[in-house]
This record gives sequence, C-alpha cells and structure tokens, in this order.
Amino acid sequence: MERRRYYEGILRSTAKTFGFREVATPIFEETELFIMKSGPNILNEIYAFQDKGERNIALRPELTAPVVRMFVNSMSNEPRPLKLFYFGQCFRYERPQSGRYREFFQFGAELIGNANAETDAEAIALAAAMIKSLGLREYKVRIGHIGILRQMLANANVPPERLPEVLQKLDKKMYDDARDILGSIGVGDDAADEIFDITETVGGKEVLGKVSEDVGSYLRELVDILAAMGVVDVEIDLGVVRGLDYYTGMVFEAEAPSLGAEKQICGGGSYSLSELFGGEKVFSTGFAIGFDRILLAMEKEGQKFENTGVDAYVVPVSDDVRTDAARIVSMLRGSGISADIDIMRRKIGKTLNHASNVKAKYAVIVGKNELKENSVTVRDMSSGDQKMVRLDDLVSLFR
Amino acid sequence: MERRRYYEGILRSTAKTFGFREVATPIFEETELFIMKSGPNILNEIYAFQDKGERNIALRPELTAPVVRMFVNSMSNEPRPLKLFYFGQCFRYERPQSGRYREFFQFGAELIGNANAETDAEAIALAAAMIKSLGLREYKVRIGHIGILRQMLANANVPPERLPEVLQKLDKKMYDDARDILGSIGVGDDAADEIFDITETVGGKEVLGKVSEDVGSYLRELVDILAAMGVVDVEIDLGVVRGLDYYTGMVFEAEAPSLGAEKQICGGGSYSLSELFGGEKVFSTGFAIGFDRILLAMEKEGQKFENTGVDAYVVPVSDDVRTDAARIVSMLRGSGISADIDIMRRKIGKTLNHASNVKAKYAVIVGKNELKENSVTVRDMSSGDQKMVRLDDLVSLFR
Repeated sequence: MERRRYYEGILRSTAKTFGFREVATPIFEETELFIMKSGPNILNEIYAFQDKGERNIALRPELTAPVVRMFVNSMSNEPRPLKLFYFGQCFRYERPQSGRYREFFQFGAELIGNANAETDAEAIALAAAMIKSLGLREYKVRIGHIGILRQMLANANVPPERLPEVLQKLDKKMYDDARDILGSIGVGDDAADEIFDITETVGGKEVLGKVSEDVGSYLRELVDILAAMGVVDVEIDLGVVRGLDYYTGMVFEAEAPSLGAEKQICGGGSYSLSELFGGEKVFSTGFAIGFDRILLAMEKEGQKFENTGVDAYVVPVSDDVRTDAARIVSMLRGSGISADIDIMRRKIGKTLNHASNVKAKYAVIVGKNELKENSVTVRDMSSGDQKMVRLDDLVSLFR
Repeated sequence: MERRRYYEGILRSTAKTFGFREVATPIFEETELFIMKSGPNILNEIYAFQDKGERNIALRPELTAPVVRMFVNSMSNEPRPLKLFYFGQCFRYERPQSGRYREFFQFGAELIGNANAETDAEAIALAAAMIKSLGLREYKVRIGHIGILRQMLANANVPPERLPEVLQKLDKKMYDDARDILGSIGVGDDAADEIFDITETVGGKEVLGKVSEDVGSYLRELVDILAAMGVVDVEIDLGVVRGLDYYTGMVFEAEAPSLGAEKQICGGGSYSLSELFGGEKVFSTGFAIGFDRILLAMEKEGQKFENTGVDAYVVPVSDDVRTDAARIVSMLRGSGISADIDIMRRKIGKTLNHASNVKAKYAVIVGKNELKENSVTVRDMSSGDQKMVRLDDLVSLFR
C-alpha cells in the first residue's frame, strides 16, 4: 500500500497541476445507469443484485457513467468546463488474469462542457503526463476518430442496429468475422477491404490524407495543439475503435508493450452521455487509466520501490525503564519523527532484531544508567555505530 | 474531496509516525466472515447477496474482520507485532441519518501479536493522536474493561448464551430492560443494582477501587503509560461495554459532544479473532474512527477548509494565439505550477470570469503584440494589478 499510495499521490498531483478537481461517487449505483450507457449485455459482466429495499443496484464497473450521473444530479449549474478527476475501485465479474482483476482501481478524468480540439488535447495531454509522471518508460498513445468508421459503414448501408457488432470485431481486428457480418448485411468484399484498410492505418499526420476533410483537419489541429503542449509521443491510429456507442468523435488509447496481451493501460475519447441520464446534452471528453495494470507495467520495466522504515525504534533495556521509553517515543512522534517501540516485552537482542525487521534507521536504547545522565544510546542500524545522546538533543539528531 | 483527502493525509501520516503500515482489503468478503465475527443477526444490517458463481458475499460492514482474515491468510508468518492501519469504505443497510450513511469511511488500526498494557496504550495513544491531529477541539476518550462486567454477570450466574443481550442493554444504558432480562434469569434486584452501579462509574484511577485487583491494576498501569505518553485527556468509564463477544479485555470509545445523539467517533479494544477464521489464537488491540462523522464534528466546531485554486489561468486574447497559449500552459505545468487554460474559445472577459470561478491566483493573458516581445500580461486576480512579464521569467514568478 505504501507503493500504491505513493503513485496514487503522483497521479493526483499531476491532475491538480492541470486544474482538475477530485470527485468521488458511491461504490454502487442503480443497475439501470450502466445499462443505459452500455446496453443490457453489461449485466453479464457486472456484480448486480437487489438490496433489502428491492432496488436493483450494481457495483460500478467503471466511473464515467457515475461521474456524469453526478454531474446531471448536482453539478449541472456549475461554471463550465468542469474538469473532474477520480480514483477508485471498479468491479467486473470476469475471469481474473494478470493485470485484470474482479476488483480493480481506475484513475480517470472527465472534461465536461465542450467538444473541440483544445478539449481533446487537454484530456490526452493529461493522460500522457500522468503516465509519464509515474516513470513508465515504454508506452504508446494512439489517437483515432470514431466518425471515420461510422461514416464508412453508413456509406456501405450498414444499418445502425448492426453497428455495435461490426465495430466490436474491428476493435479486436477480427477481420474474418467482420467480413462475415458485413457480407450478411450485403456489404461487398471491396467495400469491406477498404474499411479494414482504414483500421490498419497508423502513422503521423500524413496518413490523414485517407480520411474525409472534416475529420482530417480536426485531427491535424489536435496533433498540432498537442505538439505545442510538448506531447509528441503520440501517433494516429485509425484502428482505435472502442466499441461503445456513446463516443462521438476522437478516441484514444495508451498501451504498455511490456504487458503482452493485456497491454492497454488507458482509454478514452469524446462522448455525450448526460442526455441519457435525464440532463441536457453536454459534450465531454474523458479517459480512464488502469491503475493496477500500469503498476504492473512499471514492475515489468524493473522499477523498484523501497518501503521506508521508521526513523527510530525505542528499545527499553529492562522493564523498569518502560515508562521512560514510552515518554521518549512520544517525544519523538510529537516532533513528527516516525518512531516505534517494543510492546512485546522482549529482551534487547530480540528487540533490535525486530527493529531491523521494520527497517528502523536508528535504535534508541533506553537504559537505567544512561537515563540518570538524561541520555540514551543511539545506534545506527545500518553501520552498527553507537553513541550516547542527551535527551535534549535527541530530536535534533533526526532533523 | 480536496478537504477529505487533506484530512485523510493527516491521519495517514499520524499512523505512520507511530510505526503503523497501511493495508487494504477487498470491498466484499464472504458473508460467513462477518457472521463468524458478529453472529447471524448481522445479516439484517448488511448488504449481502449471491454473485454469479453462487458465492455468498457481503459488502464489508467494518474492517477488523477483513484485516484479521488477511492476517490469517497471508501475514501470519510476518514478524510480530504487526501494526497495521487502513482507510476505506464500509457499508450498512440502516436508516441514513446525520453522520450515519449507508456507505461510510473508516480509518482504523490493528495491533496484532500481544495482549498487554503497552499494546493497549499504543492503540489508544494513536487514536487520540489522530483525533488531535485533525484539530478537533472537543472530544473525550473513555476507557473501560469488558472483563469487569463479564465477571460480575458470571458471579450472578448469568449463562454465557444470555450475555450478549444483557451487555447490549447495558451498552445502551437501558436499565429497565436489563433488569427484566436479569430477573428472568433469576438475578435479584440487589445484584442487578450493583451491576448498574458499575456501568455508571466514571472518573480517574481512584474509581478503580470498585473493581477486582487484577483488572484494577491493569487499568492503572495502562493509564500510567498513557500519562507518560502525554495522553492525559482520558477517563475511566466502566460503562464502556461494546456489545460484541470478541472483545477480551480493555475497551475504549471516543466521542465528540458536538454531534449530539450520534456522538461516537471512535471505538475499539483488545480482542482475539484469528482463531475464528482458522488461524492460531493471537491477541490484538484495534480501533476504528468514523471518518465522515469526525469531519462532521469538525464542521460543527466551525473549522473551515479553503479549497485551493490553480496558480495560473492562461487566457488567449484571440484565436490566433491559442497554440502559443497551449505552449505556455504546458511550460507552467511542466514546472509543477498548477495552471488551467480556456478551452471554450470564450472572449477575454468571460474567460477572466471563469478564471475567478476556479479561484485562479493569476491570469496569464496571452496577446499577439506582447508575444512579439516574448512577453505576456500577468494579472493578480485578487488585486487586479497587471504587469508585463517576459516568458523567460514567467515560471520564477510563481516560485
């Protein structure tokens, strides 16, 4: 937890540097909220149940819907844009595997109030800054646009109700399956190939020649703003699909190649959800970072985290100095020095052993004779060096 | 959330100063765990349900059982004592009221490995230090001992299976009900009065004359160690009962009188639970602080918390300087200065308005003419004073 809290703090501070404010929502919501956002199939993947009041509730599988619900309920009159971030547990009933747990932590942000290239750039820049701030070395940010495929599929006369299944196959690059579905709708092989070709298009701004003028110029503008912001480690990838219906334009993902199959560490895009939850339509851009997975990626890259031990471990030499030892440990703690004390009534050797177990930097040995001179023995736990220190000088030793 | 995270940080840092390490457990556990700890009646008060794999699971109503379960599962070989703390959500299906929510946050600590006065003192000292570190002015720590009543009730021939209901009435000071139950067991009025008298006993060490020698000398030792540790704002209260079976000796509570009826902010004591969960018997002392309730108490005492705004709000004067503005906001953020930027393409007046909405300390106004001289206009948002600043000097202005 020390490691987790440390990196959580870095992400939080990065988000605040970008002018985002933290929000939190309940662990469970009405099940209907997640069905409205993701369709009834979500029921197969979530923890949904009835409470004692026969309400249908579900442990949240993600945090965008809850945050937008909270926006509609209680923040819709706040000055826009709202720049919100969150950190918390989510739950999915799926087969657990490496970096994919039934209870997992997401760090995310939502920019509520506008749809334009500056908004999208702000979201992507924050995601990139967060990943970078953790010290992850190898990662890729890939930017696409859901409008491109939606337009091509509409041109090929794919009816809207068939879109989700086609997009899902394209998202997973399962082209044979996609070809079958498209064929059954009457889309010919040539049109299908053209669509597949687009989803394989990856590169710099030059690849945008392939797409319609409006989307092309939008993504060019976005990449230019990102470049001005110093975010240059991004690429255009028109194969970023992100199956869900509610995305309206730009979509992006980040991945850590070190993770192998489950390499996605971040996903997001511009969307509009508030009108589904009874609010007015408000354009937004958001993303979520998989906290457990990104920690795993850092581990795979060999990043080490050293737990800090206490500054001082107070060791009473005999039972008759335990009260003095208690006084001394409290003096240290009261000065903000982290200090522990033997409570097992162990002999000095075993206590010093335990002090080293809890990685104490110094042992403060409290003995009867030294106390008569208002002193204690301080032992450097790494070198073993010992010296007498007057109690009046003890606190300053740790400063 | 800014306020909550701030005080959460203070509590965390106090716990670390005492040599405690943070742990976390899942949001849900097997329902059986909580039944083993608290008896089957707990089912009436918790969120319990079946998952898709037909497991009986429950949202945790408290964190001691999960932490001890984790200790038995995976930490029983670690050097003792273990000094663990936690912070997280708990859930109870109860009527919500002021300071009492269905989802609520607990901060707590468990000292696993010993049963003695030093251990109990360490736990109480940490609880008191935590409450104090938040700046709460009015609070009371009351220390009792469950052994006293257990002994008296055993002497009065109350059978063990009737103990919980009697203790529950005594905990709530419902003496008429307690007298009825005791009467039905054959306990006479005099014996009952003697028991009630004990639960009304409050004061300093002098009140311990009323209790058996072993408990009396134990509590005297505890109060002496606490005094050495500087924890003097405690009183003996033999009426601290804490209904639950698993407490073995010392019990304590802290309350904030400002909260009225729901004034308890902390409760704990020494216990033994690990053997119930399949581990060896290990004595422990722990406590939990109601985070939401203590925040409410601070509010009632008039403590104010000021949200901090961003350091800088970057205001592009016209559309043709937006890219430069993006570059400038990123330069500030890269130097650790919190900075926001207009993404709504608003005119300068509205943007300055929004900058003041988000409590920006300075507006950094980016105009075409100033940029030609590598400068921007910086406006102090509280005084309204403006001055030209060279881009090279901008970062140092915020240091």
